[in-house]
Amino acid sequence: MAESIGFIGLGTMGEPIAASLIQAGYSLKVYNRTASKAEPSVAKGATAVKHHADVATPGGIVFTMLADDRAVEEIADSHGSFVERLGSGGVHVSLSTISPSTASRLSANHARHKVAYVASPVFGRAEAAAARKLWVCTSGSAAAKQRVRPILEAISQGIFDFGEDVGAANVVKICGNFMIASTIETISEALVLAQKNGLSRSDVAEFFGKTLFACPIYQSYGKKIAAQEFEPAGFSLKLGLKDVNLAIQTATASSMPMPLASLLHDRFIASIARGRGNWDWMGIATNALEDAGLQ
Amino acid sequence: MAESIGFIGLGTMGEPIAASLIQAGYSLKVYNRTASKAEPSVAKGATAVKHHADVATPGGIVFTMLADDRAVEEIADSHGSFVERLGSGGVHVSLSTISPSTASRLSANHARHKVAYVASPVFGRAEAAAARKLWVCTSGSAAAKQRVRPILEAISQGIFDFGEDVGAANVVKICGNFMIASTIETISEALVLAQKNGLSRSDVAEFFGKTLFACPIYQSYGKKIAAQEFEPAGFSLKLGLKDVNLAIQTATASSMPMPLASLLHDRFIASIARGRGNWDWMGIATNALEDAGLQ
Amino acid sequence: MAESIGFIGLGTMGEPIAASLIQAGYSLKVYNRTASKAEPSVAKGATAVKHHADVATPGGIVFTMLADDRAVEEIADSHGSFVERLGSGGVHVSLSTISPSTASRLSANHARHKVAYVASPVFGRAEAAAARKLWVCTSGSAAAKQRVRPILEAISQGIFDFGEDVGAANVVKICGNFMIASTIETISEALVLAQKNGLSRSDVAEFFGKTLFACPIYQSYGKKIAAQEFEPAGFSLKLGLKDVNLAIQTATASSMPMPLASLLHDRFIASIARGRGNWDWMGIATNALEDAGLQ
Amino acid sequence: MAESIGFIGLGTMGEPIAASLIQAGYSLKVYNRTASKAEPSVAKGATAVKHHADVATPGGIVFTMLADDRAVEEIADSHGSFVERLGSGGVHVSLSTISPSTASRLSANHARHKVAYVASPVFGRAEAAAARKLWVCTSGSAAAKQRVRPILEAISQGIFDFGEDVGAANVVKICGNFMIASTIETISEALVLAQKNGLSRSDVAEFFGKTLFACPIYQSYGKKIAAQEFEPAGFSLKLGLKDVNLAIQTATASSMPMPLASLLHDRFIASIARGRGNWDWMGIATNALEDAGLQ
Repeated sequence: MAESIGFIGLGTMGEPIAASLIQAGYSLKVYNRTASKAEPSVAKGATAVKHHADVATPGGIVFTMLADDRAVEEIADSHGSFVERLGSGGVHVSLSTISPSTASRLSANHARHKVAYVASPVFGRAEAAAARKLWVCTSGSAAAKQRVRPILEAISQGIFDFGEDVGAANVVKICGNFMIASTIETISEALVLAQKNGLSRSDVAEFFGKTLFACPIYQSYGKKIAAQEFEPAGFSLKLGLKDVNLAIQTATASSMPMPLASLLHDRFIASIARGRGNWDWMGIATNALEDAGLQ
Repeated sequence: MAESIGFIGLGTMGEPIAASLIQAGYSLKVYNRTASKAEPSVAKGATAVKHHADVATPGGIVFTMLADDRAVEEIADSHGSFVERLGSGGVHVSLSTISPSTASRLSANHARHKVAYVASPVFGRAEAAAARKLWVCTSGSAAAKQRVRPILEAISQGIFDFGEDVGAANVVKICGNFMIASTIETISEALVLAQKNGLSRSDVAEFFGKTLFACPIYQSYGKKIAAQEFEPAGFSLKLGLKDVNLAIQTATASSMPMPLASLLHDRFIASIARGRGNWDWMGIATNALEDAGLQ
Repeated sequence: MAESIGFIGLGTMGEPIAASLIQAGYSLKVYNRTASKAEPSVAKGATAVKHHADVATPGGIVFTMLADDRAVEEIADSHGSFVERLGSGGVHVSLSTISPSTASRLSANHARHKVAYVASPVFGRAEAAAARKLWVCTSGSAAAKQRVRPILEAISQGIFDFGEDVGAANVVKICGNFMIASTIETISEALVLAQKNGLSRSDVAEFFGKTLFACPIYQSYGKKIAAQEFEPAGFSLKLGLKDVNLAIQTATASSMPMPLASLLHDRFIASIARGRGNWDWMGIATNALEDAGLQ
Repeated sequence: MAESIGFIGLGTMGEPIAASLIQAGYSLKVYNRTASKAEPSVAKGATAVKHHADVATPGGIVFTMLADDRAVEEIADSHGSFVERLGSGGVHVSLSTISPSTASRLSANHARHKVAYVASPVFGRAEAAAARKLWVCTSGSAAAKQRVRPILEAISQGIFDFGEDVGAANVVKICGNFMIASTIETISEALVLAQKNGLSRSDVAEFFGKTLFACPIYQSYGKKIAAQEFEPAGFSLKLGLKDVNLAIQTATASSMPMPLASLLHDRFIASIARGRGNWDWMGIATNALEDAGLQ
């Protein structure tokens, strides 16, 4: 019979991932700080618990999908946490986008309880999570990764492993979100240049999506940026800033400048200063329009 | 029988395009400033002429594929040029990457000789030209575009029209090259971040080429940037600077900033200052490595 | 008796400089494209001429104070220009802020008429010009500079020579205007940071003007930026863009990036796109406020 | 008789400030983590204590001059700290360059022990500290500031108050260091532009120090940047990065971009990546030379 899994964090991404696990036959104990967000999972068959540590069974597996480094640390490093409950042989599969240094620190703390930490950040939005079409990056101990692999297969269209250094998958995730944010800025500036010279933003976006940049990111983002459709947010601008800052912090910690990330940081901040923090992160495109006197 | 076409400019791109036209059955009169560069075309059946105006026949069609705005102006706007020779009913198909303002000025001058100017910049490297796999953008008079369409089909895998404003296709070409240059910088910074944190540049590039950015630009550029293979140049860094500057000039003329283009300008210039002007334009990736203390 | 001098260009800066020369006892023949702008000078004793070449007397001296490279070239390089009229032994004192390459080209053309070109760009606004308190930078032939030195002393509080390479003084002028523009951006960002954290912009500006940066530029600019007083313009934002672009062009021509100049370029352009081209160039400070969501 | 003062942190800046206080007649109890650094102060009459809390006397005054936010927090917020020892009526004069948010947090914690926190960051290098020529900015409770004012006068040439919001003086200090760092970059780019065009870096630096920017910062920094004299460090590049990062963090926390601070961040990081972290912070000037292919 399939393993019982703990799952903490049932937000935009966590909920559909939990749903996929249930659908794949796993028995889930779930926890979310705002309890009402656990209801959809319960409706699908999960058991909600009152304290986050209660999702864990000794030697079992717990998934977390939380907002940021601090949220993971608060849940996992507190006294009486699920990590202590897991104990020897337990595995923590951390899906969140956090810094490699936090991942390393957590992993070291977990080790004291003989719990393995597997970094498993995912690429894809809520729709992809619901469709079991995420891309998963993993890093951490080989044995633990082997154990959780079938579970990760149930939520993804592909798993890519980056070795035993526990922070490695987080670095890849941070690189990826930086690359997507760069793509947003790139498309934004190009489309404003087109518009300023009399062309249709959507014609130009469509052309590039069919030719040079015929991949989903350019196609979907290009279309929405051309149409200036930024609400509701698939991934919010505030979270986008968090991830660009993770790139800059990780780069700073490893002594390298990322001038393009710095530019993106400034775009995100200017957008937030103008009250757009809850827009989709594509909404930084509005800055390029404003700086061109178009809005 | 197929039309006789004039062709001026047999460099890295011009030569394989001319070859495709010959292969498609067109009779070509060709000219190149450095005469020896015409030899491969002559070997394939073209007729070389001594003066560039001699490629034209009254009312016929002339293609040009030249280095920059000035080169096209010198050839097309001089006294006794091919444009005068073409005269009423003639069409000039301009494949070069030049500014929309130069295209407009040329088009107006051509009109005095009753010659139509069709902007037809192309996307793709020499290999794509040889394989008749270019992407062509067109703009200009509808009648002239209709006449040359079958010829352009002989060199391309797709033709995209952007209307009668003659500069429009140039704007799209400038947008496209800006986007590719941005992609180079994006990949460069991401891969250095990965390397600085202990990952393999090529593993990370391969991952993104298979997942989020599964399109040829990311795949081929990612691989070469990871391997730091910048010679021989498919498209030189010097020409890359020219095109980024076209973006900035066009943006400035239309009153909009392009901060990412400014960043790229600075990268290209720093690379040229360090003696890498003849490297492939992907070679700006070396700056990110140097700024990280890695080279 | 004092020499008769020709003077072309009686705009914001040219008029008070001409007035200082008259006051110093020089006899002036003046020309301005818009003839009415010559009236104040005529009222002070100058003689207005109908064609710009007529300001020159053979072997004499002509000053020009014009808007940009093209304006100087049109006046000085045209057939029948004042340069031809000056002829052997003549000196052209060029006060305008232009590129060193234009200065070199003009100087070479002047040499064919045996006319010396002295680059003499000036620092200071109209008030400083009226008060004979400009700073003058010179470069060009030693003999010509020696001849015009007493005249330049009549308009300045100091003359600094940068040698015989004719473009040198222009480079210094371009450096200086870049430095002032950087100072504007520096003060702007600092004051918005202060304001965002509850401090008074003018208190902070005043503090720095009294301590670390106790020099006129910081004091006067700091005060106006704090007060957001940008009209009427002492030096317009449009001209500011011209000068930042001169810095970038000169840098590009000599193969070096100037990332801070690129940032300034983007600020100026964004201001112009928003309709502030006729504000004082300090008006780029408004961008920092807007990007902070404060306007 | 003059008050007994505690003083923690006898580094490059702390030691000469302590010396000035001794010279002004104050009796000092001093502490430094590396005890040997207390010796010069002891030689001048101070009493060294073994634990940092021992510098405090109930209701007295303690100065701290420490490296960064964390160092101040570790010393001041630990159990049994000097703050507890000071108790009711005590004053902590914090000279360090730290963030306004840390200052606020500390101030709130101090209040629990009825200790006042006075933010008193200083401008000036070690020589200025030795010569009692610092500029001091203050913020915090009015009564506490009044009490310590005579003491601060003994180390400074001027005290500027920014009100009761305890973080205010820190914001001014952060603005000031950002402005100096911007000045370094500004001078650097200008001098490389001059050099690339055949001028002498020192001639140009001297010109601006005598004219437009006739203030000590431009004069001393201009001279050293022109000469590329970056060792020994007056203020290290590593600390410069810390302060630029304080600007960016404070800006981010208050929702505003500082694109020039971002550029500076990238310059500092690139310098550190190349092994220049212990150079004077003016050493970021070397980046501009390298990017111009000159080193």
